[in-house]
Amino acid sequence: MGKDVEVGEHEYSAKDYQDPPPADLFDAEELTKWSFYRAIIAEFIATLLFLYITVLTVIGYKSQTDPAHSSDQCGGVGILGIAWAFGGMIFVLVYCTAGISGGHINPAVTFGLFLARKVTLPRAFMYIVAQCLGAVCGCGLVKAFQKTYYNTYGGGANELADGYSKGTGLGAEIIGTFVLVYTVFSATDPKRNARDSHVPVLAPLPIGFAVFMVHLATIPITGTGINPARSFGAAVMYGKEKAWDDQWLFWVGPMIGAAIAAFYHQFVLRAGAVKALGSSRSMCPKYFTFKSFDFLLSFVFSPSCLLKR
Amino acid sequence: MGKDVEVGEHEYSAKDYQDPPPADLFDAEELTKWSFYRAIIAEFIATLLFLYITVLTVIGYKSQTDPAHSSDQCGGVGILGIAWAFGGMIFVLVYCTAGISGGHINPAVTFGLFLARKVTLPRAFMYIVAQCLGAVCGCGLVKAFQKTYYNTYGGGANELADGYSKGTGLGAEIIGTFVLVYTVFSATDPKRNARDSHVPVLAPLPIGFAVFMVHLATIPITGTGINPARSFGAAVMYGKEKAWDDQWLFWVGPMIGAAIAAFYHQFVLRAGAVKALGSSRSMCPKYFTFKSFDFLLSFVFSPSCLLKR
Amino acid sequence: MGKDVEVGEHEYSAKDYQDPPPADLFDAEELTKWSFYRAIIAEFIATLLFLYITVLTVIGYKSQTDPAHSSDQCGGVGILGIAWAFGGMIFVLVYCTAGISGGHINPAVTFGLFLARKVTLPRAFMYIVAQCLGAVCGCGLVKAFQKTYYNTYGGGANELADGYSKGTGLGAEIIGTFVLVYTVFSATDPKRNARDSHVPVLAPLPIGFAVFMVHLATIPITGTGINPARSFGAAVMYGKEKAWDDQWLFWVGPMIGAAIAAFYHQFVLRAGAVKALGSSRSMCPKYFTFKSFDFLLSFVFSPSCLLKR
Amino acid sequence: MGKDVEVGEHEYSAKDYQDPPPADLFDAEELTKWSFYRAIIAEFIATLLFLYITVLTVIGYKSQTDPAHSSDQCGGVGILGIAWAFGGMIFVLVYCTAGISGGHINPAVTFGLFLARKVTLPRAFMYIVAQCLGAVCGCGLVKAFQKTYYNTYGGGANELADGYSKGTGLGAEIIGTFVLVYTVFSATDPKRNARDSHVPVLAPLPIGFAVFMVHLATIPITGTGINPARSFGAAVMYGKEKAWDDQWLFWVGPMIGAAIAAFYHQFVLRAGAVKALGSSRSMCPKYFTFKSFDFLLSFVFSPSCLLKR
Repeated sequence: MGKDVEVGEHEYSAKDYQDPPPADLFDAEELTKWSFYRAIIAEFIATLLFLYITVLTVIGYKSQTDPAHSSDQCGGVGILGIAWAFGGMIFVLVYCTAGISGGHINPAVTFGLFLARKVTLPRAFMYIVAQCLGAVCGCGLVKAFQKTYYNTYGGGANELADGYSKGTGLGAEIIGTFVLVYTVFSATDPKRNARDSHVPVLAPLPIGFAVFMVHLATIPITGTGINPARSFGAAVMYGKEKAWDDQWLFWVGPMIGAAIAAFYHQFVLRAGAVKALGSSRSMCPKYFTFKSFDFLLSFVFSPSCLLKR
Repeated sequence: MGKDVEVGEHEYSAKDYQDPPPADLFDAEELTKWSFYRAIIAEFIATLLFLYITVLTVIGYKSQTDPAHSSDQCGGVGILGIAWAFGGMIFVLVYCTAGISGGHINPAVTFGLFLARKVTLPRAFMYIVAQCLGAVCGCGLVKAFQKTYYNTYGGGANELADGYSKGTGLGAEIIGTFVLVYTVFSATDPKRNARDSHVPVLAPLPIGFAVFMVHLATIPITGTGINPARSFGAAVMYGKEKAWDDQWLFWVGPMIGAAIAAFYHQFVLRAGAVKALGSSRSMCPKYFTFKSFDFLLSFVFSPSCLLKR
Repeated sequence: MGKDVEVGEHEYSAKDYQDPPPADLFDAEELTKWSFYRAIIAEFIATLLFLYITVLTVIGYKSQTDPAHSSDQCGGVGILGIAWAFGGMIFVLVYCTAGISGGHINPAVTFGLFLARKVTLPRAFMYIVAQCLGAVCGCGLVKAFQKTYYNTYGGGANELADGYSKGTGLGAEIIGTFVLVYTVFSATDPKRNARDSHVPVLAPLPIGFAVFMVHLATIPITGTGINPARSFGAAVMYGKEKAWDDQWLFWVGPMIGAAIAAFYHQFVLRAGAVKALGSSRSMCPKYFTFKSFDFLLSFVFSPSCLLKR
Repeated sequence: MGKDVEVGEHEYSAKDYQDPPPADLFDAEELTKWSFYRAIIAEFIATLLFLYITVLTVIGYKSQTDPAHSSDQCGGVGILGIAWAFGGMIFVLVYCTAGISGGHINPAVTFGLFLARKVTLPRAFMYIVAQCLGAVCGCGLVKAFQKTYYNTYGGGANELADGYSKGTGLGAEIIGTFVLVYTVFSATDPKRNARDSHVPVLAPLPIGFAVFMVHLATIPITGTGINPARSFGAAVMYGKEKAWDDQWLFWVGPMIGAAIAAFYHQFVLRAGAVKALGSSRSMCPKYFTFKSFDFLLSFVFSPSCLLKR
């Protein structure tokens, strides 16, 4: 709040930040560094912990409030507690891994940042693999701890609730993931970074809250996915038909939502800077060439470079 | 806490901040910039997401705890969860849009900042239009997703609860909006900005908490408006008579509350600086002329400039 | 966490902070400044808003869950919501008033800071008067809005619950206030200020959480005072005998707790610095004289100056 | 989020931080400083307050929702409120003591930091003694205040819930403590410290949230220990056989979890820097000698120094 930016700001002359160049699609050097593999391990461990804590919370809540075993329907942490578990763990884990892997912990976030050319293709691919494996292991731990409860109380799997159409579920996943990935982009905006250098420390809180908010809203509809690894891991361990039938929803929805968020941030919110820069400054990387796949992505998410051709 | 400011501070000599000049009533140049239109789009999207998430939370809670369909009255996120949804979304969205539009997401906030001469009239007008349209679209999405539930469970519309007079409802809206807009002014105080430069990053949290607090207190009375766009959007989509009959409450109350907060901040809290400056320094803009409408506003909210005439 | 301070720190040579001198008992100049009166107004308004929001939350909760009128005992914000209301409002209001008045909003905090010689006697006295008046007005607003509910549901007054002795109630108030005032001292420690200059912005969150925590623990015992103005304002407006009979508890307890916290912080935690300084540096103000009352206070809370006599 | 670190960072040349040397196993000088004893007092007081507030919250919740005395099972703060009490108090107390003792308040945290050579052996030992004593005193206060309730409602003691095996309980404690200690290491990582110098102020929030999250997940299984002092203090004051029978779980589990977290952080996440440094730079302290016990620890947690032999 406060429009300390717009008034009297001459974007041409007093620019106090610099867009980092888009990441290469491939970066061979990256693969030779320990920091690359360390980042993949960190994503694996973080997603494992995320699923372990959250699914354990879900199962614990359902077992404590099951009318068959308990007369106290208020005895668990409540739906509110479950929403806190998801949002709070994302806050903690993004805080812990931000300096190691960038703190994605979510294939949709990785996909959005890849579309915006912030991570290379091998990194994006490996992150998504690590996240899915971590999620499977996290759910596996919960199942190993309490197999009966796990199977009785739904295994934390995402399923479309009765009474909602596929379209509604898909829409809920798209908009929910949009809220999350939009927050991620806002937190890592280089323009913001320039003005206040400690965003990496502060960003995890709004990102965690975004996850918390979306869970409050969409738990009744889909159980809230907005994270394909989370839905995948729970489906693998739970293994019931319904969870697999709806699985596509929890991949297609989040990926569309992340793509829209990347588009909104890069094309709408950042395009002003592009126009202001006009033709006088080149921020397009030299290795930006007219290859087909690269071109298509760039057409959408790095309009300034295409404009300048 | 701690009076690190007052003791030993000589406001005359060691002033480490500078009030920005009041914004012009009109600023033709602003209209030619992409950043102006980008800000309007950001306000539209943010208000859309705000209403979508919060109204979906309200409808989901009511459907899950309806005694007609559920035996578990504790099964939803609770009134506490609803209050979190409103406060938390404001935290997230102010964080995301602060650098783009100033993060108003609320016509009362825009009105208060306009009265304090922090935004121009065209910007204030366009923001309010964008916020109302965004709110309508956000509620529209919820209605599209689950039309039956939406209409059955009140559509998230603000209505005066039974047993409360119009005066009580108006008072609750006035004081509630005062709390919010007072927090906004405190967060954007240039004096505070000078001492700690990263307020734009940290301010969203107390602003979100202010919204959370007011919801805890006044949900039982009016459902808590303190945001005319939120009340307007829900009323348009819900469309029942009662919501429209009470609608004036949710415009008049917040606007009065915002005006009092602007007055309190500019006249009471900031007036000391004015007196200290006395006649020795002119911070009144040169374009400050004695036109009627401008004069009236200034008389209240920029007393120092009038004093100097 | 992390012992970045102790190891390898030579307090003698590399001291990067400076204790401000203790405040005078009286400071005539202070009384001539607008900032003094502005601070008193800010304390009045903040305490008014604090009581208004919190007592409205309490009354709203009790009216919504009264078995006589409602079949839904989970329908309100819950005791957890009430604890959030108290803690969250302190967070918001300390954030808003920290730069104006130091953000006390509580006579016990003012008393503790006075004992530690951080505020003058006239300022402490006027703050406490403003806080009590503000609390009365805040409760008055709630009563004016909904008189029947206010009287039916206890008016938010602090009373010792059945089954607890006076001693237990007093102990709960002492320790609860100790937690709060200890947090306030930690947040305003000049040593901390030196290392990270933006504490005034960040301190309100732990202070608000301290209030939240104490409410979780002691609402069942005393309703949680730890703020004599809060207890006084509610007692004045509610006016029942029991609230007045127990009133002394909510003044004596918090004042003792604040005094112990001031003693602990100044004598135990800060005394190490004192010894390290030894006789080589004089940080005792020149106006430190051997008057009786002043002497007694100093004996406890500024041991270094006495040691040097 | 955002991979601002990895891409384009040449760890060899542009290193902007310096690992502090590992702490000595013994440091005679430390014992002569007041700051050492002050730190022990601060750990004692902090753990006392932690147990007092949290156990009082647990007992208050159970007494308010006991069907034998109350018809309102939703009347207390809920399991969610209890989880907040534990997490929130850790946030507040780590904030308050971070600058004095490093803010451990937990023998498992102290053990993990000792393994990583961040504290000396005498300091680790004295901290753990102080923490256990503080926990006993904190529980003692609650018992003194309300002896009947304390004994009736379980005294806040950690016990394995019915239906869970010892292995499950141990696993839950190990992973829960891993989450906490991993967060502590992330917050105090010197690499992070270099980039944003105010971590000591911001770190308490994610640490508190980590505790909150683990309580949400494992309260149904073990009541959540992850802090041997907390389990020990409650067992001493409650004194029932079951609490003592399970006591080993709440020492062995957390210590293993802390050791794994120390290993993961030092060996996996920090090892990249080690390799990058290769043999060109020596960061191993000169006093690093080949004594047996020291060697064994170092073999695991300071691999770089051994590599260089």
